[in-house]
Amino acid sequence: MFRLKHLRVDTLGEHVIAIHESSIRTGSLGFNPMDRAHVMGIHPVTGEKREVIGVLSFCRDQLVAPDEIGLVDQAFRDLGLPEGSMVNATLAVAPRSVDLVRAKLRGHRLEREAFDRILSDVVRHRYSRVELSMFVLGCALRGLDTQELADYTRAMIGTGERLEFGPGPIADKHCVGGIPGNRTTMVVVPILASMGLKVPKTSSRAITSSAGTADTMGVIAEVALKPPKLHEVVEKVGGCIAWGGALELAPADDILITVERPMEIDTEAQMVASILAKKKTVGATHVLIDIPVGPTAKVRSLTAAEHLRSMFRAVAEQIDLKLSVITTEARGPIGRGIGPRLEAMDVLSVLKREPGAPMDLREKSLYLAARLLELTGVVPATHGYRAAQQALDSGAAFRKFEEIVAAQGARELPAEAPYRCSVKAPADGRIREVDCWEIARVAKRAGAPANLSAGVRLLHGIGEVVGKDEDLIEIHAESPEQLEFARDYAQTHPQIVTFGF
Amino acid sequence: MFRLKHLRVDTLGEHVIAIHESSIRTGSLGFNPMDRAHVMGIHPVTGEKREVIGVLSFCRDQLVAPDEIGLVDQAFRDLGLPEGSMVNATLAVAPRSVDLVRAKLRGHRLEREAFDRILSDVVRHRYSRVELSMFVLGCALRGLDTQELADYTRAMIGTGERLEFGPGPIADKHCVGGIPGNRTTMVVVPILASMGLKVPKTSSRAITSSAGTADTMGVIAEVALKPPKLHEVVEKVGGCIAWGGALELAPADDILITVERPMEIDTEAQMVASILAKKKTVGATHVLIDIPVGPTAKVRSLTAAEHLRSMFRAVAEQIDLKLSVITTEARGPIGRGIGPRLEAMDVLSVLKREPGAPMDLREKSLYLAARLLELTGVVPATHGYRAAQQALDSGAAFRKFEEIVAAQGARELPAEAPYRCSVKAPADGRIREVDCWEIARVAKRAGAPANLSAGVRLLHGIGEVVGKDEDLIEIHAESPEQLEFARDYAQTHPQIVTFGF
Repeated sequence: MFRLKHLRVDTLGEHVIAIHESSIRTGSLGFNPMDRAHVMGIHPVTGEKREVIGVLSFCRDQLVAPDEIGLVDQAFRDLGLPEGSMVNATLAVAPRSVDLVRAKLRGHRLEREAFDRILSDVVRHRYSRVELSMFVLGCALRGLDTQELADYTRAMIGTGERLEFGPGPIADKHCVGGIPGNRTTMVVVPILASMGLKVPKTSSRAITSSAGTADTMGVIAEVALKPPKLHEVVEKVGGCIAWGGALELAPADDILITVERPMEIDTEAQMVASILAKKKTVGATHVLIDIPVGPTAKVRSLTAAEHLRSMFRAVAEQIDLKLSVITTEARGPIGRGIGPRLEAMDVLSVLKREPGAPMDLREKSLYLAARLLELTGVVPATHGYRAAQQALDSGAAFRKFEEIVAAQGARELPAEAPYRCSVKAPADGRIREVDCWEIARVAKRAGAPANLSAGVRLLHGIGEVVGKDEDLIEIHAESPEQLEFARDYAQTHPQIVTFGF
Repeated sequence: MFRLKHLRVDTLGEHVIAIHESSIRTGSLGFNPMDRAHVMGIHPVTGEKREVIGVLSFCRDQLVAPDEIGLVDQAFRDLGLPEGSMVNATLAVAPRSVDLVRAKLRGHRLEREAFDRILSDVVRHRYSRVELSMFVLGCALRGLDTQELADYTRAMIGTGERLEFGPGPIADKHCVGGIPGNRTTMVVVPILASMGLKVPKTSSRAITSSAGTADTMGVIAEVALKPPKLHEVVEKVGGCIAWGGALELAPADDILITVERPMEIDTEAQMVASILAKKKTVGATHVLIDIPVGPTAKVRSLTAAEHLRSMFRAVAEQIDLKLSVITTEARGPIGRGIGPRLEAMDVLSVLKREPGAPMDLREKSLYLAARLLELTGVVPATHGYRAAQQALDSGAAFRKFEEIVAAQGARELPAEAPYRCSVKAPADGRIREVDCWEIARVAKRAGAPANLSAGVRLLHGIGEVVGKDEDLIEIHAESPEQLEFARDYAQTHPQIVTFGF
């Protein structure tokens, strides 16, 4: 018997169980770190039996005493017993579904039931990080055929909650990403909702980028809506722009991403399954996928985009989603701001039809809104752009945006960052391209997205001519150290902006 | 600046760096657990700049205060600064060699220099567990051709120290494993050394088994010899039986094993490279590889054994090792005891030519010793068995064993385990097979190898006839709970022993 201790460590969901080194000899608890242990106890009030399985870690006195067992945040929550409870611990084995993962690694196909079993263990946090890596790499290296991909997507849909908004059309969009400042969602949703479409839009926070749509919307409104609240907002004002992570709509994906991100390898199948599963669970019936293609975007060639398009289409058909996939050209960020507050300023200026509003953000948003209006049949084919433009220019979209913000809960726009500096152009010339990845790196070094006001402002757009030593970008930070850290990177990486004629 | 704190956690070598959650916003340290941080400080005495890179983890007050940074055992040791030192921390990126791992995952070949760069980062603990998994799975799934395997082995040899014992022959052996009680090394080494051969034998501790040769030898003698001591022992008495883990001869392998073990997938290339690299670094010139083949052994078919043999041969040729590979039949454990003390008793009884000594252990040892005597040219072909038998039966091998034990440092044999019980035969019949994996499981539940006296004794050998309810195995444990835990498993798994006629 051990005394339960809550170790206040965030392991990104991995169940880690810490015992004192001296316990290795006294129990039947396993002898190597990364062996698995099963912890069991009785709830003092309900009398319910509670248990959790996790990966062992060995500590000394500082963290746990010899008679204690330490559970990190997620494991402690999942066990659900008060700190100090007496619990039993025994040696446990890996979940049986890991054998299915090994079969995939050996080159076997997986059936729907296999994906169900794997993902069901994944969402219960029963997979170690090594086993999660095995699954992601097995799917990436052995590949998934169309049927496997559809089965995998269905299994993902099955792991979480689902929202219902009655008979459609329910519109949704997704951008494959990698383009800083690409906040079209915040313009498209109010246009569509102002024309009567239901758009229960969920977005992600930044994973490796300087801001996700949820971070940018989070500057203006509450985005961590639970399913009943999201439902209420959409029923009331027709649309929302919420953070998907708060909804647990496809929880397996939130866990798999923890190993996918550091891998930085091509996991197209994971991406397609994850995107379409999330659209389906949010209740969407008509979905537009935007694949930006460019030398520094996530997708770098039209061939790659075409391959991705065919995967999206094949799965969408099997899970009964009406889908349109478009490719857009990406030679740099969209809009002028990069970082939550600066991007929100761009969006507001487009919605308010201000004179200096970034044209690229406006035009791309109108184009996407047009496609969705036509796909859902709200307007006849070829009438989409005019209809979208009217919704935006009449002010209807902005009024709808204000309704959405009010329904989600308005937030006060943070002040401009106190520390700012500019970086000068290293050469004369016309701006040909801006490296999406590198410019995001500068914004991240400045503190985005954690520091809402931090980021980068492009002082000139793609296609404009600048002179050597003219101010090229402006960095915003909340501390002088971060400002310096970002400026240093920008100045030593002149390739961020490509000049030409 | 942060105050350095040593977190007494054993992460199996992974460099984990813990910061307080509140530090996420104030620095440029990364925003997600598993981002990498670079920690740097100046040594107060030597003035030397010291640095370490590790994977971030976020904690709350219990572990680190907002102005502290916590480093786990390995990272703290590698940084080499006193606790309380003031250190800088900044965001860092993955080692560049991870790009080579991604290339392997995409199907590219790796050159010698690529393996060098990867392993050099691995031994510096610069790879996260996810990246180690990527490398192991890349090699396992994409496969290594013969040249890659030889290059990989050479890179592994290059990561550690090397021992030199002058001109050969220097003999060594390795058993591919999975057979409990298979302690032939402890008989073979003294036979060979008594005939004048040099045998600097290193063995492993149990990884997933109930005992490794180093665990069993560790019952009788000190096995954690550092390279100078091992050298001295071999020069003095001709041979040793030491624990390889204390030598850092192929340190990359010790790190990769931490992810290979929980994967439990077929990583043949890893195994071949690791075994041959260790033989080469210990100075061996002539090596015998034993591949036990059986339904519950690690290698289950002669085809698989043949494939493995050809891999061993191809690499041995390229790194200039004289190699002989034999396959042996395995229908269960070798000897009667399973667990460190019980296996040591078997070995001693064979060396002392006691009447009840297990014949299978004696015969297999003589066979292996014979092959090595012939391979090294100490005796002419076909004369090996007689020569080995004479060395054993004359008592020369036992005297040599006592010399080896004395040179390494003798230990007192632990007493018999205080808690014992027997498990009865579930049926009449002749014992056809004993499941190697399952019987090891019983011994592990009883406490082996951590509890030296714990384990299982087979009361009847393969081929013997037993009656229903006759005592079949005896379990030894150091606590009643462990005895019960092991007995329960044995009684509910009658398939451990296969009966037939």
